Amino acid sequence: MKELRIVSGMRPSGRLHIGHLSVLSNWLRLQEENDCFFFVADWHALTTAFDDPGSIGENTREMLADWLAVGIDPERSTVFVQSRLLEHAELHLLLSMITPLSWLERVPTYKDQVQQLAARGKDITTYGFLGYPLLQTADILMYRADAVPVGQDQLPHLELSREVARRFNHLYGNVFPEPQALLAKESLLPGVDGRKMSKSYENEISLSASPDIIEKRVRMMITDPARIRKNDPGHPEVCHVYTYQELYNRDLSTEIAASCRAGSVGCVTCKLRLAESLNKYLKPIRERRERLLAQPGLIDEVIERGTEKARAAAGETMRLVRRAMRI
Amino acid sequence: MKELRIVSGMRPSGRLHIGHLSVLSNWLRLQEENDCFFFVADWHALTTAFDDPGSIGENTREMLADWLAVGIDPERSTVFVQSRLLEHAELHLLLSMITPLSWLERVPTYKDQVQQLAARGKDITTYGFLGYPLLQTADILMYRADAVPVGQDQLPHLELSREVARRFNHLYGNVFPEPQALLAKESLLPGVDGRKMSKSYENEISLSASPDIIEKRVRMMITDPARIRKNDPGHPEVCHVYTYQELYNRDLSTEIAASCRAGSVGCVTCKLRLAESLNKYLKPIRERRERLLAQPGLIDEVIERGTEKARAAAGETMRLVRRAMRI
Repeated sequence: MKELRIVSGMRPSGRLHIGHLSVLSNWLRLQEENDCFFFVADWHALTTAFDDPGSIGENTREMLADWLAVGIDPERSTVFVQSRLLEHAELHLLLSMITPLSWLERVPTYKDQVQQLAARGKDITTYGFLGYPLLQTADILMYRADAVPVGQDQLPHLELSREVARRFNHLYGNVFPEPQALLAKESLLPGVDGRKMSKSYENEISLSASPDIIEKRVRMMITDPARIRKNDPGHPEVCHVYTYQELYNRDLSTEIAASCRAGSVGCVTCKLRLAESLNKYLKPIRERRERLLAQPGLIDEVIERGTEKARAAAGETMRLVRRAMRI
Repeated sequence: MKELRIVSGMRPSGRLHIGHLSVLSNWLRLQEENDCFFFVADWHALTTAFDDPGSIGENTREMLADWLAVGIDPERSTVFVQSRLLEHAELHLLLSMITPLSWLERVPTYKDQVQQLAARGKDITTYGFLGYPLLQTADILMYRADAVPVGQDQLPHLELSREVARRFNHLYGNVFPEPQALLAKESLLPGVDGRKMSKSYENEISLSASPDIIEKRVRMMITDPARIRKNDPGHPEVCHVYTYQELYNRDLSTEIAASCRAGSVGCVTCKLRLAESLNKYLKPIRERRERLLAQPGLIDEVIERGTEKARAAAGETMRLVRRAMRI
């Protein structure tokens, strides 16, 4: 018997990078013991990128390849694409009828993101953007999830889901459990230039990066600015390379820190050692990804089978919802 | 070749009354020459009745029986139920991403209805209520309608549909024609007590009313208050019975007015004459309705076949929409 019903989604951002590994390794852990629903939130991508949807379809497939390559198992978990299940739009619409506008207006990320994007000259005060925490609510309640892994900043969204579930149950009878938060630590791994890791900054190391690219990106990393000559004593605590070494050369990190402080190992050598470890870590993922993509139609098949599994669960919920609402 | 693609819907209010005949006779006229999509807007019913959905399913079937009884022809037109086509919720969601909140906030009926219902102690400032003109937009654009029959007060809603169509076409390429308004006169036929005809006031004459009920309701009508005795001269222009006579005894209305002014025919006789004419008018509708309902499964079959026809058209539009948005 699987422990908990868990739902989690990710926007289709194309190829994932090592900054995403903290979320993915959490998913892998959860997948062991629970009944997990992992989905590509492609409709959500439109809330901010409506004017340039790029190729959401292509990004979805690239991201799914990464999920499978790291070990998300479509036999064990239900892996699907949101937009393939129109039931999510239906539930979103039905829930919209009982959700006060004020509940959405007070979600802290709403005003924050509107302001942030306005500063960059982009207006996202659309009806859809205001409603996106409610679409998340529909995504979660659709599978009557017991729990949802969330970062700290997503807690108000989950609180909304819980409020909407309560209101629905109060108005129409008990259909939805109130989903609990599984608070997950978020990756704070910076990009190679020290800023937030993001494809748009070109400072990321993608899960599918070749050894050459890995080395190139590692070489771009900012080290301790006080260390001018190779033999100067360094300060690992201010060095981005060392932040990475702690993750990808964990066993050696004490030694690495000591040799840095002593000025006995130069930054270039240190970087090459990191690049090598990163490559060792990413190689099996990269190779598995290539094997997966070499099988024509595999990703499509995963999507089809996942959609079917998700539809069975969603259909069951929607029958309860429609009966409760007498529609 | 049918002239225009036309879309029109009605909220499922259960049995219709003679006040609805102006809309229905317009539909019958349109159905002759055009490719009409007539739908039961059951999701719309939830925007204001979310806390008491009553039996939307049962009301839908009662209303459909009335449509068929007056002559809406499911062979010629596409007759369907909105909630059966999840594509409507999908298109609503996709359009929400490109629809500025301000466009919805400035729809005049929004603030009006919020205030009207607030005065009765009911708060409908929900996300769904704000978005309902956008759901109408999705209903219309789904069938790439050329035209929509609307009353004067619905013009701002249609203008919103046209704006959303333009914005979609501008962002993603040409998919939607801009629907034109077919301005229709609205029924001003009052209820038997002089107020707006409405089931909730119990002042309506339903299309399926029995001869007894018709007579009973007509007897409740308010006549010229200055006419106290049978022989007093009356004033047809202030008499509700006369308003009805002009519609249901059109050929005799001059004679009826004259005998009223002369005081030669009393109000009771006049009312019985009206009841008789109303019954003559409604009898074939009532009988046809009974014949339809005597065939078990007929309404369900009409819904199934209509859903299929609508789905074919909706599917075609959604393929274009998804391709244009690259999702």
